[in-house]
Amino acid sequence: MSTATYTVKGMTCGHCVSSVKEEVSEVAGVTNVEVDLATGLLTVNSDGPVDPAKITAAVEEAGYEVANQ
Amino acid sequence: MSTATYTVKGMTCGHCVSSVKEEVSEVAGVTNVEVDLATGLLTVNSDGPVDPAKITAAVEEAGYEVANQ
Repeated sequence: MSTATYTVKGMTCGHCVSSVKEEVSEVAGVTNVEVDLATGLLTVNSDGPVDPAKITAAVEEAGYEVANQ
Repeated sequence: MSTATYTVKGMTCGHCVSSVKEEVSEVAGVTNVEVDLATGLLTVNSDGPVDPAKITAAVEEAGYEVANQ
């Protein structure tokens, strides 16, 4: 089990949260995704380590950006 | 043909616009719906006059509010 956190920029409402959760959930190995709209905090649980680039790409696919860590 | 305009409050992003368009488009008689995110302007074209209460209800169904006219 791995847990990684990211900060997502640009989300404004619950629809944005849903879009990010949907895209990130589709990344191979990801088992659970939590998103906090107010803070932009994205928490990704996975079976093992997941390449952060894949998470960033999924967030961008949803139309948002990951803040530099 | 009738055209009516409303001001919708609470939309923050393109997903919100889509939700409003989808719900208002389902109101009987409505032929076209335009929504401007920046101003909240909702323009409804219809075959004939449509009860404003039905439009307001559709906007609320989408999760937003119509400003008092």
